[in-house]
Amino acid sequence: MIAVYPGSFDPPTDGHLNIIRRAARLFEQVIVAVGYNPRKKTMFTPEQRVLMLRLATADLPNVEVDSFTGMLLVEYARRKNADVIVKGLRNSADFQNEFQQFNMNFRLSGGLDTVFLPADNGELFVSSTLVRDMIVRNSHKLGLFVPEEVAAFVEQHRDQ
Amino acid sequence: MIAVYPGSFDPPTDGHLNIIRRAARLFEQVIVAVGYNPRKKTMFTPEQRVLMLRLATADLPNVEVDSFTGMLLVEYARRKNADVIVKGLRNSADFQNEFQQFNMNFRLSGGLDTVFLPADNGELFVSSTLVRDMIVRNSHKLGLFVPEEVAAFVEQHRDQ
Amino acid sequence: MIAVYPGSFDPPTDGHLNIIRRAARLFEQVIVAVGYNPRKKTMFTPEQRVLMLRLATADLPNVEVDSFTGMLLVEYARRKNADVIVKGLRNSADFQNEFQQFNMNFRLSGGLDTVFLPADNGELFVSSTLVRDMIVRNSHKLGLFVPEEVAAFVEQHRDQ
Amino acid sequence: MIAVYPGSFDPPTDGHLNIIRRAARLFEQVIVAVGYNPRKKTMFTPEQRVLMLRLATADLPNVEVDSFTGMLLVEYARRKNADVIVKGLRNSADFQNEFQQFNMNFRLSGGLDTVFLPADNGELFVSSTLVRDMIVRNSHKLGLFVPEEVAAFVEQHRDQ
Amino acid sequence: MIAVYPGSFDPPTDGHLNIIRRAARLFEQVIVAVGYNPRKKTMFTPEQRVLMLRLATADLPNVEVDSFTGMLLVEYARRKNADVIVKGLRNSADFQNEFQQFNMNFRLSGGLDTVFLPADNGELFVSSTLVRDMIVRNSHKLGLFVPEEVAAFVEQHRDQ
Amino acid sequence: MIAVYPGSFDPPTDGHLNIIRRAARLFEQVIVAVGYNPRKKTMFTPEQRVLMLRLATADLPNVEVDSFTGMLLVEYARRKNADVIVKGLRNSADFQNEFQQFNMNFRLSGGLDTVFLPADNGELFVSSTLVRDMIVRNSHKLGLFVPEEVAAFVEQHRDQ
Repeated sequence: MIAVYPGSFDPPTDGHLNIIRRAARLFEQVIVAVGYNPRKKTMFTPEQRVLMLRLATADLPNVEVDSFTGMLLVEYARRKNADVIVKGLRNSADFQNEFQQFNMNFRLSGGLDTVFLPADNGELFVSSTLVRDMIVRNSHKLGLFVPEEVAAFVEQHRDQ
Repeated sequence: MIAVYPGSFDPPTDGHLNIIRRAARLFEQVIVAVGYNPRKKTMFTPEQRVLMLRLATADLPNVEVDSFTGMLLVEYARRKNADVIVKGLRNSADFQNEFQQFNMNFRLSGGLDTVFLPADNGELFVSSTLVRDMIVRNSHKLGLFVPEEVAAFVEQHRDQ
Repeated sequence: MIAVYPGSFDPPTDGHLNIIRRAARLFEQVIVAVGYNPRKKTMFTPEQRVLMLRLATADLPNVEVDSFTGMLLVEYARRKNADVIVKGLRNSADFQNEFQQFNMNFRLSGGLDTVFLPADNGELFVSSTLVRDMIVRNSHKLGLFVPEEVAAFVEQHRDQ
Repeated sequence: MIAVYPGSFDPPTDGHLNIIRRAARLFEQVIVAVGYNPRKKTMFTPEQRVLMLRLATADLPNVEVDSFTGMLLVEYARRKNADVIVKGLRNSADFQNEFQQFNMNFRLSGGLDTVFLPADNGELFVSSTLVRDMIVRNSHKLGLFVPEEVAAFVEQHRDQ
Repeated sequence: MIAVYPGSFDPPTDGHLNIIRRAARLFEQVIVAVGYNPRKKTMFTPEQRVLMLRLATADLPNVEVDSFTGMLLVEYARRKNADVIVKGLRNSADFQNEFQQFNMNFRLSGGLDTVFLPADNGELFVSSTLVRDMIVRNSHKLGLFVPEEVAAFVEQHRDQ
Repeated sequence: MIAVYPGSFDPPTDGHLNIIRRAARLFEQVIVAVGYNPRKKTMFTPEQRVLMLRLATADLPNVEVDSFTGMLLVEYARRKNADVIVKGLRNSADFQNEFQQFNMNFRLSGGLDTVFLPADNGELFVSSTLVRDMIVRNSHKLGLFVPEEVAAFVEQHRDQ
C-alpha cells in the first residue's frame, strides 16, 4: 500500500509529524506531498517546506517527501501509483472540509479512497496558522508546537 | 410567492442548479440574484455569472436571473417584492453562516423570512471554491460538478 | 401548496408555534402532524398534544392539527397530498439529524421535498425536553417558553 | 495488517457494507466485530446480526465476522492481534463521538490506532436507527438502505 | 464570587476534577452540586457521588460538595446565593447543549450568568459515560481517567 | 481578578459590549485589548477602535481599553498581570477556533486560563464582519447591531 499525505505544511507542525509517524506504521510507503500554487503567497517556499519535512522525517525509512503543483491531487496520486490518501482530523470543521474533498476526489478518480487519522490528543490544537502567527508576533517558543528541526530552521531563517 | 435565491455563483455548480430546480417547484417565481462587490476580485465577472445561470436555467419558465450590488440583500428583495429568501445548506458550517445572516436579515427587514433547502445527496460536496480550484489546476472534468452549459462556457473562456 | 409540519410536540413550545405561524404565511395549508408510537412512553398523550396544538393555533385558519402512527412520515404526507415537509432548525445538531431524515424521506418518497425554517432568535434555545424537565422539577414559569394555552393546560393537568 | 471494524449492526446497513468493502481493499484481513451487552435490549440478537453480516459479506474472502461481549474493544482487538481499528464517519456528530473513543482506546491500549473512512456519498444518511424506525412503522422498502440479504432476513423475521 | 458547578458526576472523572481545580482558582467559593432525579436510574447513588467528590476535593479548602433535587438549577443557585454557574466544554456537542441551558437559565433567573471552562487537553475525551462503560466491561484501568480516590471507591464498590 | 478581553473590534458590536458588561460584573477589572497587526488591512485604525470602545464603555468604571501589537496575547496578559482571558462564544464554529487558541495559550503561558461567556440570545448573530458588510453596502441601520456611540462614530467617519 502506497499512501499520499498531501498538505501545504507552511510550516510543518508536531501535528503533521504525528500523522506521518502513524501513517508510516500503517502503510508500506508514505509520500508526504507539498501542494503549492506559485501565485499564492506563503510564508515558506515549497523548497523550504520540503526541506523542513525531510529534516523532520529523516529517521523514517518508508517516508518520502515530494511536492506538486498545477494538477489535482488525484492526478498526482495516480502518477505516484498511490493506493490511498491520508489526512488528519482535529475537529469537526476539519471533518467538514475534508469530507467535501474526499467526495470530489473519489468521484474525480473513479474510486481513490481516503483514510482519516484523528489528531492525537497532545497535538489537537496545533495548526500552521497559529505557528505563523507566533512567528509574526516574535515568539521564540515554536519548539512547543513544531519538530525541533523545523524550529531550528525557522530561527535561522528569521535571523537572515 | 416570489422567492429570491442570492449567491455569488462564481461559477454556478450542479448544487446551485439543484436548489434552483427545487425552489421553482415550490414557489411561483424564483429570482436568482448574483450579488457582487465591484472591488472584490472574482474568477468570473457578474455578467458572465448571469449569463451562465441564464444558459443553465433556460428550461425553467418561472426562474429569472438578475444581479445586484451596493445594497443589502433585504433592500434588493424589497425592491423585487420578494416574499421569501431561499438558501441551500450542505453541512453544519453552512448552517452556522446562514443562520447568522437569516437573523440579521430578519431584523433588518422587519420580518422577511428565509427557507433553507438541504443539499441533495448527490450534490452535497460540490462548491464553487472546489470548482475554481479545478480550473486553476487545469482539470477538464468540470462537467462532473457543474451544468454542461457552464462547463462549456468555462472551457471556451479558458481558451481565450 | 400543502405543507406538513411533523413532530412529537411533547409538549408544544413557543419554538414550535413560531415555526407554525411562519409556515402559515408561506404555504396555503399547513398540517401540524403529531407522530406517535403507542409503545413509547411520553409525558402527554397524543390526544392531549393535538388538543394543546389546536388551542394554540385557533387563530390560524389555514392550520390544521392531526396525528398519525404506524406509518412512515412520507406515507402520511402522501395520503394528505402534501407538497412539502416543513421542519425547524435551531442548531447544527438539529441540522445533522434533519439532514439524514430529509435524505431518507426524499429517496423513500421519490422526491418529496423538505424546507427548513431557522429558529427565530428569541426561541432558539427552547425545547420540549427542557420544558418537560421544568415540569418534573416543579417550576411554574412554563409561560416563558410555551404558548399561554399550553401553560394553562399543563398547570391544570398537573393539579389533577 | 489486521483491521477490526466494531459496531452494533442492529441491523447492518448499506453504509456498513460500504465501509467493509473499502476496508477489505485497504487491509489484508478485516474482522467485523459485533459488540453487545447481554443486558441491553436490541432489535436483533447478536447471533442474528452475525448471520446477516456473514450473508452480506459472503463474497469477501478476507472478511471475517465475529462477536464479543464483557470486555473492552481494545482488549478484544489485542486478543485478535489486530493492528488497527476501522470506523466510518458520516457527519461531525459521528466524528465527535468517535474522536472521544479513539483517544480512550489509544490511551487504554498503549497506542492501538484508529483509521476513519468517510461515508460514501450515497450512503451518507443511512443509519440503523432509521432502519429500525422503518421496521416499526411497517415499511417494506428496507431494500433501499440495507443489503438485499439483510432485507430478506428482516422480512422473514418480521413474518414470524 | 460564589460559583456553582452542577452535574450528575456518575462517577466523577479527571475531567470534572480539572474543571473544579481551575474554578477554585478563579472564584472565592465553588459549590460542586450533584443534581439528581430520584426516579432516574444511575450507576452510583447521590450519596456515593457526593462522597467520591468530597474525597477527590479534600485538598481544596474553598470547594464544597452538595446535592439537590426537585428544583431547577437556578432555584438551587438562588438559595445558595451563587453569583455564577460554571460548566466545562469538551466539544461542540457540549457547547450546543450547554448553550440552550445557559439561555433558559439566564431567562428563568433574570440574569444569572454562566461561564464555560474549556476542557484541558489531557482530559478532553474523558466522560462519565465511557467510564461507566469500562466498569460494565470489567476494565480495571479506571485510574487512567478518574481521580485515584474515585478509582479506589469504585473498585471497593465493585467487589461487594 | 484581572481579566483581559482581546479582539480586533473592527468595529465593536452590541455582541462585544454584552460580553464586556457581563465580564465587568464577574471580575474586579476588565482590560479590553485591541490586538492589531500594522501590516494587516482593517476598516478602522487601532486608534479608532480604541476610541469607539472607550465611548461605548464610558459608564463602566472597572473597564479599561488598551491596544497591543507585535507580541502574543499571553505575553501581553503577563505584562498586565492578568489572571484570566475572557472570550465570547456565539456558535460551535467560534468554539472550535477558541478552543485551539485556549490550548495554545494555556501551554505557552504555563497555565493562564480562559473563560468563555456564551453570547446572549439577542446578540447571537451579530458580527463585525456583517457590520462591515452593511457599511460597504451603504446601510444606515447600524444602530440595530452596534452601540449608539459606535453607530454615531461610523456615520461621522463615513461622511468624511
